[in-house]
Amino acid sequence: MAAAAAEVSNKRVVLKRHVTGFPTEDDMELVPATARLAVPPGSAAVVLKNLYLSCDPYMRSRMSRHDEPSYVPDFVQGEVLTALGVSKVVESGHQDYKPGDLVWGMTGCEEYTLITNLESHFKINHPELPLSYYTGVLGMPGFTAYAGFFEVAKPKKGDYVFVSAASGAVGQLVGQLAKITGCYVVGSAGSDEKVNLLKTKFGFDDAFNYKKEQDLTATLKRYFPEGIDIYFENVGGAMLDAVLLNMRLHGRVAVCGMISQYNLEQPEGVRNLFCIVAKRIRMEGFMVTEYYGNYRKFEEEMAGYLKEGKITYVEDVAEGIESYPTALIGLFYGRNTGKQLVAVARD
Amino acid sequence: MAAAAAEVSNKRVVLKRHVTGFPTEDDMELVPATARLAVPPGSAAVVLKNLYLSCDPYMRSRMSRHDEPSYVPDFVQGEVLTALGVSKVVESGHQDYKPGDLVWGMTGCEEYTLITNLESHFKINHPELPLSYYTGVLGMPGFTAYAGFFEVAKPKKGDYVFVSAASGAVGQLVGQLAKITGCYVVGSAGSDEKVNLLKTKFGFDDAFNYKKEQDLTATLKRYFPEGIDIYFENVGGAMLDAVLLNMRLHGRVAVCGMISQYNLEQPEGVRNLFCIVAKRIRMEGFMVTEYYGNYRKFEEEMAGYLKEGKITYVEDVAEGIESYPTALIGLFYGRNTGKQLVAVARD
Repeated sequence: MAAAAAEVSNKRVVLKRHVTGFPTEDDMELVPATARLAVPPGSAAVVLKNLYLSCDPYMRSRMSRHDEPSYVPDFVQGEVLTALGVSKVVESGHQDYKPGDLVWGMTGCEEYTLITNLESHFKINHPELPLSYYTGVLGMPGFTAYAGFFEVAKPKKGDYVFVSAASGAVGQLVGQLAKITGCYVVGSAGSDEKVNLLKTKFGFDDAFNYKKEQDLTATLKRYFPEGIDIYFENVGGAMLDAVLLNMRLHGRVAVCGMISQYNLEQPEGVRNLFCIVAKRIRMEGFMVTEYYGNYRKFEEEMAGYLKEGKITYVEDVAEGIESYPTALIGLFYGRNTGKQLVAVARD
Repeated sequence: MAAAAAEVSNKRVVLKRHVTGFPTEDDMELVPATARLAVPPGSAAVVLKNLYLSCDPYMRSRMSRHDEPSYVPDFVQGEVLTALGVSKVVESGHQDYKPGDLVWGMTGCEEYTLITNLESHFKINHPELPLSYYTGVLGMPGFTAYAGFFEVAKPKKGDYVFVSAASGAVGQLVGQLAKITGCYVVGSAGSDEKVNLLKTKFGFDDAFNYKKEQDLTATLKRYFPEGIDIYFENVGGAMLDAVLLNMRLHGRVAVCGMISQYNLEQPEGVRNLFCIVAKRIRMEGFMVTEYYGNYRKFEEEMAGYLKEGKITYVEDVAEGIESYPTALIGLFYGRNTGKQLVAVARD
């Protein structure tokens, strides 16, 4: 018989109801619970202590109920949310993991999570860098920027690059990768503070606050008198329409997300798609998970950039599992500056 | 001194006024004129006798006046329209062309045309096939189907293929190339007669009359219960929106044209673009002229298919230069069945 396992407090964020339109904090509930720090005998499960939990735009889809399967599974009403996170193994039945190991991957929005299948987790190879970076620049959003920019948009030196939601987890990195590649890059964001960050901290050649612009088509023409070669699309809707009119011949639109549309009952109509023919544009959606086979190459490259100071990274860290609902909702109002995450525990 | 050149009647179709909205026959004018069958001494010009003139959807753009250059140049008010055509050289100052040579390329909408620069013309290598075919299956529309399907959509055997405007010059060939490739192919068209043609003559696996369908999303789901791998896009608007919802993972949309939108003051809004992310769709516009370097390979392959009876081709031939305005306008109402062209002279 194993010794009686420790039982600890395990506050968790549960989905109270499925969402239509803008989500609110009331759609989630913080539920007190306990966790046993033990794995089922003979299983390959592990118990994770969650250190940092990520808030990401794709989670909006999971908060709704879809009649047909969506591209990510819906959250289940009354059950704990799941999110990407950085975790420490505290108990392990798996031969490849031992207590103290650090991993990142999908975990529960709670303090401790029992994971029966670790197949989609990555061990953390650079714990000398801030661990929270594995929710961002060294994790899914960072690799999204890298794969989307290099594999989908296929940049060339000298290309004119436009990034929307440019101060977000993905956008800030796309801009810096574009500069490393020798591109000219302009970003848009939703506050003067963010715009300032783009220009002074992330090295964008220029940036603008889209909320202050009356006519986005004219705005883009001002920032790109020669037109846009690459649009890294994070927002959709009216911005995409304006971009299409400003694309150059053989331009590429790497479609990462369309956050401006996620909370609308009916998405905005995009009217300028004929530009796709007239300018022979390639518009391509991608999902970072399809590139995970190359993650280690990315991790090494990005860790190198960070250590050399070639890439700067800004996080917006909320403290404590209690702050998770507010932090997640804030994403959809653009309240975060930089990558939004929640620090559940420091070690 | 050269002998006095013959002067012949040369009726021509002139643009009376630039167009907004649906064009009408009254936007063009048939003007009686004469032509001298002679080339300027010392020039490399040729005089072409136009045999067959093509009516193509891209010409709609040319009938409007654009403030900024469009993807094709605007027609000039008061001047003769230009169109693709099959022509016979009747006078030549060019060392590579002699009277009697047959060519296809951009010419005037008139009986005779003086061409000073033949660089964008192709000599006709298969005059044993109907010459009019070089306005279609062996010319620009045929090569559009071929390049768009093979180079842009990149089909695999077993792919589910949907073609809109499927009985038109390009669509009928895409469907047949899809069958040759081992795909399952369904087409849409705007009349029962055209639908019948798709099923009985062009070998589409199935076809439907979009004008009789209330809910295109449901219609496509009925015809493609497994979803669509390739959409060959000729129409845009509501059909594209319905297709996006029915695409499969990693589907490709080869965007050839959007004829349903050309005459609208404001294009319809397309709302389902988020499917591009969710299903990792590649949507790519193309223009056949960028593939012209491979035209000869296509010409040989397609001539072979025609002689072996592997490709069937249907034309809608209007008689006489006088019929050009009516034939061109008919395209935008879907009045043509098969490739629309005008026979100006038989030889």
